[in-house]
Amino acid sequence: MVANTQVIFSKVPTTYPVVGEHITVKKSEFDLDAPLADGEFVLKTLVLSVDPYMRGRMRDASTKSYSPPFALNEPMTGHTVKEVVKSKSSNFKEGDFVYGMGTFEEYFKTNDHVAKLYGLVVRNDPKTNGIPISNYVGILGMPGMTAYVGLYKIGEIKAGETIYISAASGAVGQVAGQIAKAQGLRVVGSAGSDEKVAHLKAIGFDGAFNYKTEDTATKLAELCPKGIDVYFENVGGKMLEVVLTQLNKFGRIIACGMISQYNLSEGEKVGGLMQIIAKSIKFQGFIVSDFPEAEPEFLKVVTEMILNKKIQYQESHAEGIEKTPEALLDVLKGKNFGKQVVDVAKP
Amino acid sequence: MVANTQVIFSKVPTTYPVVGEHITVKKSEFDLDAPLADGEFVLKTLVLSVDPYMRGRMRDASTKSYSPPFALNEPMTGHTVKEVVKSKSSNFKEGDFVYGMGTFEEYFKTNDHVAKLYGLVVRNDPKTNGIPISNYVGILGMPGMTAYVGLYKIGEIKAGETIYISAASGAVGQVAGQIAKAQGLRVVGSAGSDEKVAHLKAIGFDGAFNYKTEDTATKLAELCPKGIDVYFENVGGKMLEVVLTQLNKFGRIIACGMISQYNLSEGEKVGGLMQIIAKSIKFQGFIVSDFPEAEPEFLKVVTEMILNKKIQYQESHAEGIEKTPEALLDVLKGKNFGKQVVDVAKP
Repeated sequence: MVANTQVIFSKVPTTYPVVGEHITVKKSEFDLDAPLADGEFVLKTLVLSVDPYMRGRMRDASTKSYSPPFALNEPMTGHTVKEVVKSKSSNFKEGDFVYGMGTFEEYFKTNDHVAKLYGLVVRNDPKTNGIPISNYVGILGMPGMTAYVGLYKIGEIKAGETIYISAASGAVGQVAGQIAKAQGLRVVGSAGSDEKVAHLKAIGFDGAFNYKTEDTATKLAELCPKGIDVYFENVGGKMLEVVLTQLNKFGRIIACGMISQYNLSEGEKVGGLMQIIAKSIKFQGFIVSDFPEAEPEFLKVVTEMILNKKIQYQESHAEGIEKTPEALLDVLKGKNFGKQVVDVAKP
Repeated sequence: MVANTQVIFSKVPTTYPVVGEHITVKKSEFDLDAPLADGEFVLKTLVLSVDPYMRGRMRDASTKSYSPPFALNEPMTGHTVKEVVKSKSSNFKEGDFVYGMGTFEEYFKTNDHVAKLYGLVVRNDPKTNGIPISNYVGILGMPGMTAYVGLYKIGEIKAGETIYISAASGAVGQVAGQIAKAQGLRVVGSAGSDEKVAHLKAIGFDGAFNYKTEDTATKLAELCPKGIDVYFENVGGKMLEVVLTQLNKFGRIIACGMISQYNLSEGEKVGGLMQIIAKSIKFQGFIVSDFPEAEPEFLKVVTEMILNKKIQYQESHAEGIEKTPEALLDVLKGKNFGKQVVDVAKP
């Protein structure tokens, strides 16, 4: 038997979840010596990803939404990189790194059938290419691919245009900004601290501002003198209302997330939607998992950008699986700086 | 000299325009005998179109929007069919019917250059095909083409889907509904009177309801048992908020107009925009004039539908140009039944 710490979804929150009430850490055990059936294998979690969208999964199971609700009193799930530590599967061999939707616990036994269902894939590149494993749940994982798909499939970005990115220092925003910049756009971002704003400028944003201390409308007008062609929307609410007034004709809103809304018991209402008609705006939501065909190109392009030092990625690391609840709360409250990951174990 | 009654934009309204204050009828004269320069021609208005979007043009000239503001103390303009009554143009000959943006007055002298600028075109079909001239500012004019472009270029409609159309008995809605039905969709519409609802059912809508006397959410759930795939949005405000909750994944909102908002001093705010992300919804505004390449196909398809009696078009006729202000007010208040036109003169 080995210790198997788990992160449990223990109660449906109405506003911000509370650590120890809605999310709890449970000490349990895992039998590493139990025999495996054919096709079964055991995974050890190396790194896990906490992301804003997870708040939407902390709901009553009767409410439908794009991502399935967490099961009450079960481990939460999210994007992880795990290592195969024992295997009777021919697809997942001992020592393989595995990326995909995984349970938030130290050990997990699964099988080929479940792995296929959840889209688990072997991702052994970080064993040799020098890229940190944590990057594979961030810039090279779901958040990075969300940025890529959003820009190209939804935003239809073109060189010479201006893009504005809210929550720009976040897991998705910083990738979106740097890819857009490499594509020849003028890139403007906002974030919630001066440290984050300085980081945005350091990684090549043409303009950045602190939305908590500066007036969004004024700063956007100043930093986007030709108006905004594409808005990478991570925030929602009042921010969206202001941006609508400064979008250009044929503007696109890449509706990626609305973090300002996730912890409100009732969502904020937004005015000025007539702008969508007046300026022929396309406001489109998407879920990255609907674009699996984009993954090979995304991985190739962004891996090369990393190896050629054409892109940087800021991460916040929490150490130890028991820090997961606080790490998620930091993300929901904007206290993290860059992509928040939890380092669970070394390979 | 002949009498030339004009419809003048005389003051910027803040809510509903008032006849005699914001829109006034002016008696003036026109010199039919004045000699013409080369390229000049004189048009006599046969029929004119009053449409909801015109409210947006009754604004202060300093406010930008998709359609140019009306000039103060000048005749309003809109879609008209006029007849060439005198000409020194080789493009517009005496007796030709001309369709396009025209002044709201009985007579108007123009020239080839201006005609090109405003996209005036000769439309002599109704002289021989038996289709009423008024149809050429309605089902075969801007509103009909708006329905066509909205459905195919924005809505990407597919057989088997469900479409919901608000303001469904209006100039655009009734065309959209019948084309969608012919395309194999389930078509549901709402309108503001029992007479209009009965008409929708008579022209083939699968379901229709009176949004003033019935609960929109309840009726939509009942009439769209498989949810809504496409929403043809003519209304905005609370209607939009309700529809967002019943749209299916990958739903499309054809953002055509928001008549509930045009006469409010401040637009209503709309909640539930998180649905756009949760359900990968595309909410897209458009202006039909950005799709000129669609016109030949539109005219061909819809003309054939009319001649083969595959489509019906309800019109309200006001008789005489001096009735124009009231006719426009009727449209803005939903008192008209079907496409509102003003018959100005016979050819």
